Amino acid sequence: MKTRAAVALAAGKPLEVMTLDLDGPRDGEVLVEIKASGVCHTDEFTRSGADPEGLFPAIFGHEGAGVVVDVGRGVTTLKKGDHVIPLYTPECRQCKSCLSQKTNLCTAIRATQGKGVMPDGTSRFSIGKDRVHHYMGCSTFSNFTVMPEIALAKIREDAPFDKVCYIGCGVTTGIGAVINTAKVEPGANVVVFGLGGIGLNVIQGARLAGANKIVGVDINPARKALAEQFGMTHFVNPKEVQGDLVPYLVALTDGGADYSFECVGNVDLMRQALECCHRGWGESIIIGVAGAGQEIKTRPFQLVTGRVWKGTAFGGARGRTDVPKIVDWYMDGKIKIDELITHRMPLDDINKAFDLMHSGESIRSVVIY
Amino acid sequence: MKTRAAVALAAGKPLEVMTLDLDGPRDGEVLVEIKASGVCHTDEFTRSGADPEGLFPAIFGHEGAGVVVDVGRGVTTLKKGDHVIPLYTPECRQCKSCLSQKTNLCTAIRATQGKGVMPDGTSRFSIGKDRVHHYMGCSTFSNFTVMPEIALAKIREDAPFDKVCYIGCGVTTGIGAVINTAKVEPGANVVVFGLGGIGLNVIQGARLAGANKIVGVDINPARKALAEQFGMTHFVNPKEVQGDLVPYLVALTDGGADYSFECVGNVDLMRQALECCHRGWGESIIIGVAGAGQEIKTRPFQLVTGRVWKGTAFGGARGRTDVPKIVDWYMDGKIKIDELITHRMPLDDINKAFDLMHSGESIRSVVIY
Repeated sequence: MKTRAAVALAAGKPLEVMTLDLDGPRDGEVLVEIKASGVCHTDEFTRSGADPEGLFPAIFGHEGAGVVVDVGRGVTTLKKGDHVIPLYTPECRQCKSCLSQKTNLCTAIRATQGKGVMPDGTSRFSIGKDRVHHYMGCSTFSNFTVMPEIALAKIREDAPFDKVCYIGCGVTTGIGAVINTAKVEPGANVVVFGLGGIGLNVIQGARLAGANKIVGVDINPARKALAEQFGMTHFVNPKEVQGDLVPYLVALTDGGADYSFECVGNVDLMRQALECCHRGWGESIIIGVAGAGQEIKTRPFQLVTGRVWKGTAFGGARGRTDVPKIVDWYMDGKIKIDELITHRMPLDDINKAFDLMHSGESIRSVVIY
Repeated sequence: MKTRAAVALAAGKPLEVMTLDLDGPRDGEVLVEIKASGVCHTDEFTRSGADPEGLFPAIFGHEGAGVVVDVGRGVTTLKKGDHVIPLYTPECRQCKSCLSQKTNLCTAIRATQGKGVMPDGTSRFSIGKDRVHHYMGCSTFSNFTVMPEIALAKIREDAPFDKVCYIGCGVTTGIGAVINTAKVEPGANVVVFGLGGIGLNVIQGARLAGANKIVGVDINPARKALAEQFGMTHFVNPKEVQGDLVPYLVALTDGGADYSFECVGNVDLMRQALECCHRGWGESIIIGVAGAGQEIKTRPFQLVTGRVWKGTAFGGARGRTDVPKIVDWYMDGKIKIDELITHRMPLDDINKAFDLMHSGESIRSVVIY
């Protein structure tokens, strides 16, 4: 069959919207019609050429929502017409990682996903004789895509695609980091570095978990109002702090954060996030993705005196299990998404989404098919 | 009164055994006759001058056992004749840290302890008119010392001082790191860097916790036999490993350590200890004390993919609560101590203990009064 898609032909170039060939689903695979897809910084990280593991040509996009249109042999948990959210972190429920119940980092299809192909080692996308790579196992910048059954979360049918697509990455990453990774408890004091899409979702996760002080740190004062709407109780602009930021944050949180979150991908902020934690028990969670080869540093004394350094991917969420719950939370009004989707556009205009990201104007742009 | 003690008059010099003055216990304080004291690397760290917070003159020693000979006003939990182990990490049970139930790092007397004085801001030791500093709130290289009531664990009277003194630091640090900080569960795979006194206690802690593989890493093959006696199942000499150590350890532990422990104080080993942990859930615990100003480093990807970096001080143990239990474990034969005490000497020979430490001959030397 044919599908319209935004193709990344080479690193550093704009995407090109074109019609290309898509093979149907093979054993254990599902054909999905994508209805909406968010455009995330991770797409831009790879598009720009900064991602050392980036493959070209490829179809990016990993934050989508859509409808099942066909299933391959052996697919038992999904059928035509089901509403789904693609999962770049699958949940096979059978590998050592899934069975450990200690991590969401399913390893069932990791090797092939990293190579830009389906679990059988081949791609479904092609332009004439040339194969085009899948991306993060999703490729949602295509009107149709093929996914493994284990990488699709079935969601309720009354959820709007153009909102819940965001749950495919940003919302779950931020809220999940609070709930699954940090396990923030009521009354805790929380510091959030970076008030972009992830940071705002961390903030609403902290509010949901009953946190006490929710401190947002950002050099962009324009983010203050929206962050307050999401639950932020204190705003700190590092440019306006006299002296060092870390002792300022420690004082503001009565001895240090119980939990801190780095949502930028800056290794210097990761250090500050750790060191502003409370002596004895404060935990810092790295969410942001740092540039290739960059390293985090601190004195071991920071850990010996009780601080804990952690990270999270996809918010520690088990996709097929947790994503449908987060969709319910949105539908029940427990969490907000609409306010974060600042721009909407057709697929033909997808490069505008990257421009808006660079200008800092958007929180999230969503492509509507 | 007078006491015989080994006094550190200046950094880098041998200790001098002399008789000096000791004031009696003031409010909330206890006079203890020290019967035995281990000599620990931390004493040497400060004696050598490497400790940037070291104070001189001082009486070192923080790993003792003894008998209460007098109590000051207001002391309610101890009386003359009680057997005690001094605690460099006190347990007041009233400060924010103690009440948090999340850390053992009691802050009740931290400020004054760091200044080498008792909680009222003065020292009990003097040579003529010159005050001599306390050390880590203990000063067990003295036949008599004065301690705050909250810094003494009451222990059973049939426990031999010359063995259980080691519970005052090394034993509790190693076993506690396993039980309190890592919370190792039965079946876990554990990697231990450094098979000195701390590492051997980590190994017996892992055995006690029912660990599966207990891998010891040391460049000294002479430690292998003793470590096996303590529960080590696999010995790795990095000098004999072809290629990189980290992937070797990952393969040996079926994907990585569930828990790793750094017991040396070397920041490069701390990185290896983290990176040999299992993707998704492996936790690395820093126990060793690094040199002043040294930093640990890693790529944030290590944490984002689920590894956790922690540290521990005094094995996360609440001294007054946990130390008596560990004494019981020793008396009940659940843990070994005798095999670790390789040298015994009178106070007059204390400098030999430091020499033995440097030559690598001793695991633990104990001074007997």
